[in-house]
This record gives sequence, C-alpha cells and structure tokens, in this order.
Amino acid sequence: MADFNVTPWDVSGAIDYDKLIMQFGTKKISPALKERIQKSAGELHPMLSRDYFFSHRDMDLALDEHEKGKGFFLYTGRGPSGPMHIGHLVPLVFTKWLQDKFKCNLYIQITDDEKFLVKQGMQWEDTQKYSHENILDIIAAGFDPKRTFIFKDSEYIKNVYPLLLKTARKTTMSTAKAVFGFTDSSNIGLTFYPAYQIVPTFFEKKRCLIPSAIDQDPYWRIQRDIAESLGYFKTAAIHSKFLPPLSGTEGKMSSSAADSAIWLSDDAKAVKNKINKYAFSGGKSSMEEHRKLGGNPDIDVPFQWLKIFFEPSDKKLQKLHDDYKSGALLSGEMKAALIEKINTFLAAHKEKREAAKESIRDFMHEGPLAKRMWEQQF
Amino acid sequence: MADFNVTPWDVSGAIDYDKLIMQFGTKKISPALKERIQKSAGELHPMLSRDYFFSHRDMDLALDEHEKGKGFFLYTGRGPSGPMHIGHLVPLVFTKWLQDKFKCNLYIQITDDEKFLVKQGMQWEDTQKYSHENILDIIAAGFDPKRTFIFKDSEYIKNVYPLLLKTARKTTMSTAKAVFGFTDSSNIGLTFYPAYQIVPTFFEKKRCLIPSAIDQDPYWRIQRDIAESLGYFKTAAIHSKFLPPLSGTEGKMSSSAADSAIWLSDDAKAVKNKINKYAFSGGKSSMEEHRKLGGNPDIDVPFQWLKIFFEPSDKKLQKLHDDYKSGALLSGEMKAALIEKINTFLAAHKEKREAAKESIRDFMHEGPLAKRMWEQQF
Repeated sequence: MADFNVTPWDVSGAIDYDKLIMQFGTKKISPALKERIQKSAGELHPMLSRDYFFSHRDMDLALDEHEKGKGFFLYTGRGPSGPMHIGHLVPLVFTKWLQDKFKCNLYIQITDDEKFLVKQGMQWEDTQKYSHENILDIIAAGFDPKRTFIFKDSEYIKNVYPLLLKTARKTTMSTAKAVFGFTDSSNIGLTFYPAYQIVPTFFEKKRCLIPSAIDQDPYWRIQRDIAESLGYFKTAAIHSKFLPPLSGTEGKMSSSAADSAIWLSDDAKAVKNKINKYAFSGGKSSMEEHRKLGGNPDIDVPFQWLKIFFEPSDKKLQKLHDDYKSGALLSGEMKAALIEKINTFLAAHKEKREAAKESIRDFMHEGPLAKRMWEQQF
Repeated sequence: MADFNVTPWDVSGAIDYDKLIMQFGTKKISPALKERIQKSAGELHPMLSRDYFFSHRDMDLALDEHEKGKGFFLYTGRGPSGPMHIGHLVPLVFTKWLQDKFKCNLYIQITDDEKFLVKQGMQWEDTQKYSHENILDIIAAGFDPKRTFIFKDSEYIKNVYPLLLKTARKTTMSTAKAVFGFTDSSNIGLTFYPAYQIVPTFFEKKRCLIPSAIDQDPYWRIQRDIAESLGYFKTAAIHSKFLPPLSGTEGKMSSSAADSAIWLSDDAKAVKNKINKYAFSGGKSSMEEHRKLGGNPDIDVPFQWLKIFFEPSDKKLQKLHDDYKSGALLSGEMKAALIEKINTFLAAHKEKREAAKESIRDFMHEGPLAKRMWEQQF
C-alpha cells in the first residue's frame, strides 16, 4: 500500500506524483511536450514550467489538431456545494490561459444536480444559490464571453437528454462502481450522474481538453472507453497536482476544513490572520536557529503557494527560495510576502466579480457561444 | 415455488390471482368496494363487475377523497418500443371510464427514455417515431383533451428534473435491484429510470390512482415508501389481470410473439385469419364430440377476450358461455363472434386515430391541462 490515496472522493497523504502517473496510467508532461506548447502558445505558463501541471492524456494529439487548424475545445466544471476558495480558482486561471493562447471554446458545467445527490441534507434552493454565487467567481477568472458557455446541469438538461441516455446506456453499474467507489447503498441518482459529466466532452466534433487536478481523471477513463463508439473523440486531459491546504503539504485544500482554506470572500484582515496563524512553515523554531540553519521551502506552505500561483516571476521566486534556505528570509517575511500577493489578488478578484453581475447573461444565455448552445439539441 | 411468475419483466405460467394478491401484499377488490365505486360512478364497468380489475392499493382512500370533494388524479404510461396491440389498449379503455366518471385529470407518460435504455440496439429516432404513433393510438381511446396531459419523458424532463433528483436521492441501488431485478451489468441509465416513473405521481398534491396490470405494481412500492417524506401522497393503484395471448390462457399478450397479438393496425382479414388460425380453443376436437360434451369457456381464448373486453352485455355473454358449455355453440361460432366484435372495434379505432392527428397538440401542448403543465416547474 502506498502512504497516499488519490480518488475522486479522497485525496490524502504525501503524494508521490511519479507513482501516481504510473498508477493512473497517464503520461508525464515531457520537456519536448512543454516545448511544443510553448511554440504554439508563444509562452509557457508558470504552472507548466514549474510542473504544477505535470501529467496528461493525449495532449500531444490536441496539439496536432491545433497545428492542423482543426483545433480543440476546453471543458471544466464546478460543483456548487458552497462558497469557493483559492484552490478552486487555480485551475480556472490556467484554463483561461489556455483559452487565450489557443483561442478555444470553453464549456463550464455547474453540477447542481450532483451536489444535491451527494448531500442528503442539502436543499435544492441551496444548490441554486451557490450556483449563482460560484458562477460570478468563475467569470471573474476572466474568460472570453464570446467563446465561453457556462451552464447549470438542471437548466441545460433539456438540450442534452438524448445524448445523456446514449452515454448512460454504454456504462454498466459495475464500471461505475469500480471507477467511483459506488456501492449498493449509493442512490440511483448519484450512480447515473457520471454520464452527465461525460456529455460536455461531446459538445463539438473535435477533441476536448480537460484541465483539472489529477483526482478527477477517473471520470474521463469511462469517456475514453465509450467516446469512439458514439462517434466522438476520446477526450484529452491535462492534470495538475493539488494546492496544499494551509495546514501542510499533504492532501489538498478542502472546503470541509475552513481554517485550511482562503475563501474568495475573505477580507484582507482575515487573510493575514489565517496565514499567520495556520500556514504550515518550513522555518526553524527560533529565529537564531533559522538564521543559522535556514528554512525548508519544500514543505513551507507559503512558499509553495507563491510557487504554484502567486509569484509569476521566476527570478523573484528563486530569490525567495534561496534566501529562505540560507536563513536570510524569515518565516514571517515569507508569510508577509504571500499575504500581500493574496490580498492584491483578492481585491482585484472582488472587482471583477462585481462586474460579472453584468456579463453573466452573456456567458449563460446571450453571448455568441451560449446562444448557439441553447439552439442546439443533442 | 409457484408454477407462475409475475414481475415487471416477466409474466408466465398459469397465474393464481388470489395467491398473487398475497405475494404482492395488495388487497382484493371486495363486493363492498365495488358497491362504493358504483355509487360514486353511477355504474360499474364490466371490467370491474367481471373481476378483470381485481386488486388494489388504497382505492378506498381515493374514494374517500373523491367523496370529500378533494378528488384524485389518474396516471398511466406507455413504453414506445413498437406498435401497439389490443392488450395495450384494454387498461386505457378502463382509464377513460374512470376519467369520465370521476372527472379526473389524467397524466400519460411516454417513456421514450426507458425503452431506449432497455434496448441496446434501438436508435433514438425509433423511440421518437413510435412515441408519435403510439400517442395517436392512445388518444383514440377517447380521453378528455381538457383534462389529459400526454408527455414524452425526453421533452418534459426540463420541467421535472429537480423533482426527479429528489426522488432518485431517496432510492438506493439495493432497493432498485431488489424491486426491478437489476444487476451490476445493468446500465446506469436503466437503474436511474425508476425515479422518473415515480415523478408523475407527484404532479398534484392529491392522491394519484394508477390503473395497470398487476405486474407493474412493484414500481409503486418504492413510491409508497418515499412519497410522504417528500410531502406527497402515497399513490393508490387498481390492478388488472392479464389479457391472455391468442395462444392460450397462460402468460400475457406480448409484442415479442407477433402471432399471439392483434395489432391495432391489423385489417379485418388479418384479424379473421389470426383468430381462426391461432386462437386457443376450449372446444372439443370434433364437432360431434363438442355437440355432445360441450366446450370449456374458461380456457377458450375467444370467450375470455369477449368477457374481458369485447362483449359489454352481461346477458349476451352469459348466453355465449352457456351455449358453449352445452355444445350448442361451436368453437368456430365463438371465434366468428369475436372476429366481428374486434373488427367493428378496430374500424372505429382507426377513425378515431385519424382524428387524433388534429387533437394531438391539445393533449401534448395546447389543451388547458397541458398548457398549465408546461408552465409549471417541479
């Protein structure tokens, strides 16, 4: 047994990502693949150059199709079970970069149905409230309203039901049990749900590319088994590691541990308090010792967050790393650097979220892609 | 083990209906209950007086509610997997009688999704074609266009999806396996489907009454387990026996044995040939023997069909019975009596079916009940 666990319903332990690639049967993003992406995109996003996005399936085929002019499209989603934290936004920021660089259509599925089915106590009205709130946060990531369609499952069901049935008919209960850990105690809505998560990969007769954390990969294995028999492409995927929770570098940031997450609605004071109080530090226990022996950036959550998301400059990041290791930079100073970055980011996010209240109708109903999608019956 | 089997997916053997009532835990329609129905309805339909409808759940409560002025509503359905035969029409004729006598709203579910999920080889387009064809046959049964709403699952899904999820969330896979015989090889669409079959019982905050052959009863057991926790009524049901196939009094008329069924599209010659060639006779093997010993109407399919459906006059039916038993009436004469009745019925049916092409939009979209249903979100 490995001392870590990664499934769509549990991420825990100190994850060995190379082992995970072997377990999941995906491919590592090689230097050659990075070079190809850079060539097509004109630059390499830090999440790629720093190996936060580290694994893929058929990304090379998606690039082939891009180079041939056929192109590919993007698909991601969000389960509206509550407010969003920074961990939810990270893959969206990368997705926006892909959309900008490859001029792709992007479909964003709001899985109000799944969240309702998973949580016995949840009221339908709550999923609807959170759907609206989450969509504003998603739009704030900066997607192109002309090329992006955001839809709630419960609303778009009328356009996709026959395709949903075709997908479900190809998937047996035993496959769903093996892939998702369902049991006979699971409710019959939840066991049906994986079919709907596959449907958006069939929205265009092109290859779909799904950027997500690697724990979501099992969903796409079923897609890849059945896509061609239904006349569609096997989806490609590009997988990230997990944004560590404040409490340490194991597992991932989770909504169920509120102290370990920075919410998109947190104010500057809350951010400062949380980082100072809860962020796991790789520093030494006393200032003297730290100055003498230096800290360990590899297990320092503030440094890891700066590396994954908040410090785009490689030069500045390297300096933070080296100064921390030498002892020149103290834990409190590393935290202060992160706090400033987060608060700048969140202030901008809140402004963009406010503006999203105007553009939400373009993403969902009135923009060119949204309009086309509402006219289409699958 | 009984020497018969009755489940939603198999009906075979010589059915002992009293035993079935015990097995299923339903109630026999008592003389007292019949009297109450007669009092409310003003008359008793032959299918009731002749015990073709023989079992029920909570029909007495539905009558209570009718008497109190609150009323109840009716619900039935059709799986559009092919053309319809007479066995499909029999419960609809009884349902029409209930609607007329109790002035009920009636909801008719066309389960295009289920049929597609059950039959791996079936094209979606076929379910749509058969849906249309079947709906015309259903309308020809004479329902009230002001009080009847006929809907295809795939079309009405947009109005009921949240309610469908609420229903599915209350039903575990193990319940669905126990009730419907699903296995892990069943596809995840099919195991979800029972939830949609329950949803129409929640269309009004009144008690629903479902007229159907008794093999469909298991569907409503789950409904009765979960209805009250969702704020609705446990459905009532009234159960019929099975219309025997032409080939004999065991099992039920089935689409998979074409020679054993009279199709609603059969012409007069086809009906005559089929009855004469295939209808199982309770007569003796020679005319002499028959005249001397008489026939057995209990196993004579033509007599049984006359009793169940085609001969409304009790007096005439009694005479057919007695003359057959005495030997005065020959098997060929019994068959001729049936052939004439069927052909008269089918000729009228075809005319009404032709007229249904005009009224289909009232039943599905434009009639007062249909209109109200399309405006309603569940």
